[in-house]
Amino acid sequence: MKIVVDANVPAAEACLGELGEVVRVPGREIEAATVRDADALVVRSITQVDASLIAEARAIGSPLRFVGTCTIGTDHVDEQALADHGIGFSSAPGCNAEAVVDYVLASLSTLAERQGWRLAERRVGIVGVGNVGGRLLGRLTAMSIDCLACDPPRVEAESIEAEGPEGLPGFHDLDTLIDECDVLCLHTPLVREGPHATHHLLDAQRIAALAPGTVLLNAGRGDCVDGRALRQRLAGQGDLTAVLDVWEHEPAIDAALADLAEIATPHVAGYSLDGKLRGTHQIYRALAHHVGLPARLTMDDLAPPPPVARLVLDSGLSPEEALRLCMRVVHDTRRDHDSLHREARRQGMAKGFDDCRARYPLRREFATLEIGLREGAREWAALLAGAGFRVDMA
Amino acid sequence: MKIVVDANVPAAEACLGELGEVVRVPGREIEAATVRDADALVVRSITQVDASLIAEARAIGSPLRFVGTCTIGTDHVDEQALADHGIGFSSAPGCNAEAVVDYVLASLSTLAERQGWRLAERRVGIVGVGNVGGRLLGRLTAMSIDCLACDPPRVEAESIEAEGPEGLPGFHDLDTLIDECDVLCLHTPLVREGPHATHHLLDAQRIAALAPGTVLLNAGRGDCVDGRALRQRLAGQGDLTAVLDVWEHEPAIDAALADLAEIATPHVAGYSLDGKLRGTHQIYRALAHHVGLPARLTMDDLAPPPPVARLVLDSGLSPEEALRLCMRVVHDTRRDHDSLHREARRQGMAKGFDDCRARYPLRREFATLEIGLREGAREWAALLAGAGFRVDMA
Ligand SMILES: NC(=O)c1ccc[n+]([C@@H]2O[C@H](COP(=O)([O-])OP(=O)(O)OC[C@H]3O[C@@H](n4cnc5c(N)ncnc54)[C@H](O)[C@@H]3O)[C@@H](O)[C@H]2O)c1
Ligand SMILES: NC(=O)c1ccc[n+]([C@@H]2O[C@H](COP(=O)([O-])OP(=O)(O)OC[C@H]3O[C@@H](n4cnc5c(N)ncnc54)[C@H](O)[C@@H]3O)[C@@H](O)[C@H]2O)c1
Repeated sequence: MKIVVDANVPAAEACLGELGEVVRVPGREIEAATVRDADALVVRSITQVDASLIAEARAIGSPLRFVGTCTIGTDHVDEQALADHGIGFSSAPGCNAEAVVDYVLASLSTLAERQGWRLAERRVGIVGVGNVGGRLLGRLTAMSIDCLACDPPRVEAESIEAEGPEGLPGFHDLDTLIDECDVLCLHTPLVREGPHATHHLLDAQRIAALAPGTVLLNAGRGDCVDGRALRQRLAGQGDLTAVLDVWEHEPAIDAALADLAEIATPHVAGYSLDGKLRGTHQIYRALAHHVGLPARLTMDDLAPPPPVARLVLDSGLSPEEALRLCMRVVHDTRRDHDSLHREARRQGMAKGFDDCRARYPLRREFATLEIGLREGAREWAALLAGAGFRVDMA
Repeated sequence: MKIVVDANVPAAEACLGELGEVVRVPGREIEAATVRDADALVVRSITQVDASLIAEARAIGSPLRFVGTCTIGTDHVDEQALADHGIGFSSAPGCNAEAVVDYVLASLSTLAERQGWRLAERRVGIVGVGNVGGRLLGRLTAMSIDCLACDPPRVEAESIEAEGPEGLPGFHDLDTLIDECDVLCLHTPLVREGPHATHHLLDAQRIAALAPGTVLLNAGRGDCVDGRALRQRLAGQGDLTAVLDVWEHEPAIDAALADLAEIATPHVAGYSLDGKLRGTHQIYRALAHHVGLPARLTMDDLAPPPPVARLVLDSGLSPEEALRLCMRVVHDTRRDHDSLHREARRQGMAKGFDDCRARYPLRREFATLEIGLREGAREWAALLAGAGFRVDMA
């Protein structure tokens, strides 16, 4: 089996190479001729897999029977065209969800330190309880942090009770979250139309309704928040804290809003090496399944050892300090904030924004860090494990 | 032997208690009557040990034969009066010098990350090469960082050659450092008069002479820099980076200057637990020596285990990232910057400044962190050890 793979998909040889011969091609150069004799094609969002590419490929006799994209988005793939030609398809939903949750926890922990509050005393509202929001809800709940969730499409589709699914807090409407939460985390996709449209889900009116002191974090889609209204509230009253990873008009985002955001990052919340490898791995499993081969490799076979292998803690820190330390050792979102501002000054916003994404440094996930707890630090085990770390007694 | 000790001197029982009976008294309440039957008095800078206190103590029959101050400064002690009454005296010079060096390295490392440069490519000028500056010179040299030193009083007193003492870089005049260094670190005491006066050592003219892009760090004394001239350059051209731990008119410091400084901290560079314990330990040794008793305890007997016991690194980081990570795990100067700004907003500058100092969180020194280096990280051993960490091969 010949598998054409975007040049930037990591670990393709180590992983997809188990199933067939991997041929690397730069994503922008992939066209019908590229897959002339390929059985499978694995892309990222840069490659348009549209009806004409598929038709042409078939016309020149391509045996293509599977297309995979190592991304959570599928806008660049014409799934109907694939189905029409009997070509299997898979994307990698949720592959970088853990990384986004790391980003959220690390950012909140930094804000708490900076502003002098404790996350344990705040109620967090999660809007959009899918791959990202669901994992965030799970981790915060495991950390005993009070959460309210909002996901009307899920409530409708799954008839989730107001009390919430087993072990998880209840689902509420957005305005209840706005009324009752100190921190509001947006993890919704962009839905332009219909009863659950998310375009400017946080519009001027809802932004005005946020209580002074509220933290608003958006790591879903930029268009879910009315950036102009948010900028005006931040510039005018200055009584909100904004953490923004996604923006309207990326990469030419509103520089004034970026200046006013306490943490402003260039759509990199999900950029972990583990997330990228998980994307490859999900496609590897889907392809193996599709062609009836066993998928022997696990994620552990793909991921290199983390640069920060182990951290041993003893008594003397508060639980918040211990948590912050562990998080920062793995990911410090202030670094991404600083680079965005630096590169925007150097190269202008649009170029700087893209450059930060293109040259994003190696980042691992919390789950790669082994934390040894000595006698005096054992009581934090549940908290640290809940936050996603690997905890043992040292 | 009865030893009266300021209530805020740490570990006095564990340490001075080996030599005699420790009686705690709040520093502000110490007066002649307090030492009526005391053989030794151990203070901090809050207690004025002046001629009248000594005379009165003697008048009421105090057997006092030793006074120690667990501080590097001695302005609050009338050493002549002590000598006149045959009372031994000791201060704790250099006790917190390592902590200040940690502060300098951690701050420079943060700036390098934020501004996108590498310390290894910068030349550092050190002004005042005493307890702090000398240790800074030693650590930077061990890290293979290019340094120029300036200390005219030492050059005069020790007739140090321009080439510098064995193994250390040469000594130069301040204007050479200003011309040739990218980073200028001030570690001079306040000297008001004489050929080597340091009041406004960095005056308007010298501040104007700093090349654009220069980092100016002051952790010596606030009055060594003309704050008004510095503020004007920062506000006007904005082409310098200031890191300020000491200020004119503490605690009512210039809020505009604090806003313009990239890192602004409330005179806490030296505030490590280890530094405080070292102060106690130095006085313990001096007292033991003075009364002819053995001083059996070492610093290791006094210092509790550090909360961050061990960090294990593997390959995947640049040397700068590895260094930064190790530093941050022990001390992140942005925390102190953030608290100063937060408390200044909450309580006003003077109160906020003092409050941050009074409620300073536990901080350890780099030397307390054990760093294990796995195979792929071994090449950093010299760099990390040079920076002051305890390094082993994991
Ligand atoms: N910032 C980043 O780096 C990054 C990384 C990963 C994902 N994302 C984005 O985060 C968003 C969520 O990703 P995901 O993988 O969790 O997607 P998902 O599809 O798994 O989950 C989205 C959830 O939002 C819910 N939702 C839809 N409309 C809603 C509404 N009006 N109100 C409340 N909830 C609503 C859906 O029902 C679903 O449960 C996506 O837009 C994705 O592009 C960003
Ligand atoms: N920020 C803090 O938390 C903190 C902590 C410790 C010390 N300090 C301050 O740092 C300063 C240095 O402390 P130290 O313990 O190293 O003192 P020190 O006396 O050991 O060293 C000071 C050095 O400065 C030199 N010096 C004097 N005048 C000079 C001049 N005009 N030009 C160049 N060098 C000159 C002296 O010769 C001496 O070598 C002191 O003012 C001290 O109060 C601040």
